[in-house]
Amino acid sequence: MPDPADITSLPLLQEEALEAYSTLLHKLLDDLEEMSASEAGGCTRLLYSPSWLEAQHYLADFMKERGLGVSFDEAGNLYGCLQGTRNDAPLYTGSHIDTVQSGGKFDGALGVAAGIAALLYLKETYGEPSRSLVALSLSEEEGSRFPFAFWGSRSITGLSSWAAAGELKDAEGITLQQAAEAAGFGPDSGLRSGIEAPAGYVELHIEQGSVLERTNTSIGVVTGIVGQKRIDITVQGEANHAGTTPMSYRKDALAGAAEMISEVRKQAIAYGDPLVATVGNIEVFPGAVNVVPGTAQFTLDIRHTDQAILHEYTEFILQRIQTIADSYELIASSEEHLAVEPTPMNPTWVENTVEICEQLGLSYRKMPSGAGHDAQIFASKCDVAMIFVPSKDGISHNPLEYTSREQIDQGFKVLIELLHQYGYRGKTDEEI
Amino acid sequence: MPDPADITSLPLLQEEALEAYSTLLHKLLDDLEEMSASEAGGCTRLLYSPSWLEAQHYLADFMKERGLGVSFDEAGNLYGCLQGTRNDAPLYTGSHIDTVQSGGKFDGALGVAAGIAALLYLKETYGEPSRSLVALSLSEEEGSRFPFAFWGSRSITGLSSWAAAGELKDAEGITLQQAAEAAGFGPDSGLRSGIEAPAGYVELHIEQGSVLERTNTSIGVVTGIVGQKRIDITVQGEANHAGTTPMSYRKDALAGAAEMISEVRKQAIAYGDPLVATVGNIEVFPGAVNVVPGTAQFTLDIRHTDQAILHEYTEFILQRIQTIADSYELIASSEEHLAVEPTPMNPTWVENTVEICEQLGLSYRKMPSGAGHDAQIFASKCDVAMIFVPSKDGISHNPLEYTSREQIDQGFKVLIELLHQYGYRGKTDEEI
Repeated sequence: MPDPADITSLPLLQEEALEAYSTLLHKLLDDLEEMSASEAGGCTRLLYSPSWLEAQHYLADFMKERGLGVSFDEAGNLYGCLQGTRNDAPLYTGSHIDTVQSGGKFDGALGVAAGIAALLYLKETYGEPSRSLVALSLSEEEGSRFPFAFWGSRSITGLSSWAAAGELKDAEGITLQQAAEAAGFGPDSGLRSGIEAPAGYVELHIEQGSVLERTNTSIGVVTGIVGQKRIDITVQGEANHAGTTPMSYRKDALAGAAEMISEVRKQAIAYGDPLVATVGNIEVFPGAVNVVPGTAQFTLDIRHTDQAILHEYTEFILQRIQTIADSYELIASSEEHLAVEPTPMNPTWVENTVEICEQLGLSYRKMPSGAGHDAQIFASKCDVAMIFVPSKDGISHNPLEYTSREQIDQGFKVLIELLHQYGYRGKTDEEI
Repeated sequence: MPDPADITSLPLLQEEALEAYSTLLHKLLDDLEEMSASEAGGCTRLLYSPSWLEAQHYLADFMKERGLGVSFDEAGNLYGCLQGTRNDAPLYTGSHIDTVQSGGKFDGALGVAAGIAALLYLKETYGEPSRSLVALSLSEEEGSRFPFAFWGSRSITGLSSWAAAGELKDAEGITLQQAAEAAGFGPDSGLRSGIEAPAGYVELHIEQGSVLERTNTSIGVVTGIVGQKRIDITVQGEANHAGTTPMSYRKDALAGAAEMISEVRKQAIAYGDPLVATVGNIEVFPGAVNVVPGTAQFTLDIRHTDQAILHEYTEFILQRIQTIADSYELIASSEEHLAVEPTPMNPTWVENTVEICEQLGLSYRKMPSGAGHDAQIFASKCDVAMIFVPSKDGISHNPLEYTSREQIDQGFKVLIELLHQYGYRGKTDEEI
């Protein structure tokens, strides 16, 4: 546990150096954006593709030239190590540069660029840390080329392997292992990071929501990553002629589904934040203007930071769906196809981050992350922390994704202070 | 107006002859089914296709051999005339033999077969009528090959022409006129029916709904064909991340649409029969499990026999949709793309049909037709009547379509009596 006394003796950030390394951070973001600008707008860097590989090597060269110890591992994860003077387990910071198709400039790239810039700032300002600090650019967080989100961090933490993921295919039928090998990685590449397992993982990320913007808050101190359930609901009624079937004879699958969808929302509001429940899609069969729908299928996405509440709401809403089905003489069935448990952030780190915000005079808000991040993978092996900065209009995975330089620099400062605290201030592994 | 005294002097149906002509009716239905059995099940006879043409010529030959005056017109409508002794305008009876893809055995075909069999029964039993009676097999009632329902009856009544419909294309890009010409019809074929404009049109049809079956009723005495509105509703909200957007920030187009769909049903029930309102399809954009829907589009089909109520409900529900949109901070817009006014059947004929049912000891029910029929086209030019027989489970446009021989024969008797009343009992055009 950190000593609160340490917190109050935070070193003043060196404003001039900060300005220089903020410029460097933004140069990295600009360069990454430029080198992978997509014809359809935004950035496209799919794992192991030429544009991803170019960007990953660009970052490797960038770090090498500036004195970090650079290595790749067999999954293509990139490490830039600022070697510590003690044998403490290293502290990792970073994110990913893979994107969705026509993604934004900041999702993932911000955490990578900020991690690199933070290490270089710390190196110049304070010299060697006591604990090794490692900037990371992880492989396939999005799952946008291969259907396997968090492949990079799963590989590092040993939660997955080539045996489990290597045969997964992209849209063109190329396997993950084939693509990795074509890019110079893969199980036979002999590539090793040479970096020890982490004591902790810290990630700066855009919020991808609009809570910070709407509440005019600079920093989101992430308390946990939500757990999630995805369930498909099928409602079976009876297709009938829309003209010749009186209202009282109908077993209208869509009419029933509509009431279920209203109920999902109403009950989610009743449960209150941070519960969110979303029906993102619905399909109706036969789906003709003049036929009473015989079948309706809709998706259900439920998230909460507390597993017990996630479970309780899910059970409750499934029961309500059955009751509504009964009252419409319909048959409802459900199929769960994703269940991810919530990931709490380390509470001490949360408090440290809060204290740093207070020291720096930055407005902050403790909040959940409604989206998934590599931190939830690292959480199974070490303590994790996440720092959010605002997303304009909450937009992400879109060329319109935007966070201002000022907002980024505020998050960058918090990241630097957190890394400084655990890299230079003498905390041992036990204290982490 | 018919003299009620006439009604009470209905001739007794000749049971033996009836049995023979019922057998003939069912032979026609069986033959039509057999010669156009679809590989995918059921019957497929698309307008001007080889199977339709074969069936139409089969019917022409069948009538010719039995002494009816047979002719085709340029649209391919088939006429079988039992010539009357007076110059009164003829009475038409019939339906259509074109089907949807993999349609049933009875929709349309029953009215054609029953019309032919009724004329042959009357000819044998009573000889020449005073008023000409004409059995009709009309072209393209369904609109299943060309997007132009009622082409045959529209052509006869002058409500449409080759200039208006000839260039309409089927799914393969063949125009209606090209297809007609390939089948031996078309504007240059010189084909004319030689039949005068009708004094009236009577059609026997399956209900295509389940009201008669559920109420254990033999005959549906159609009081009118419903008017109909088809309206597309677009609901515009804001697409957002399903994980990072708290419930209170959402402008969820599907949540709003769901409440609108519930309201359509609730208000239709409140208005009461015969109003029916159906949302047959909905589409959601972007339609991803993890994205709050930004747009929802759904169809609305509203029917009633009374134009004023049809209009009132439509206006009311569109207003309710706006109110719901406002309460969800959504923008709703509507586009009407079909508006058909109700078609009342001739009230005297309705009463005559009721009296015939009572004379014959058949249970009957005055009811609207929720589906469209050629009668609504003829209604602009002459008096019309329709007789319904039950449809098992209300199923139509499907190989499972079924009406028993006994049920059909009951409708056949009513049709014969109605034709007899106006063809043999001395009623003048003024009386019709």
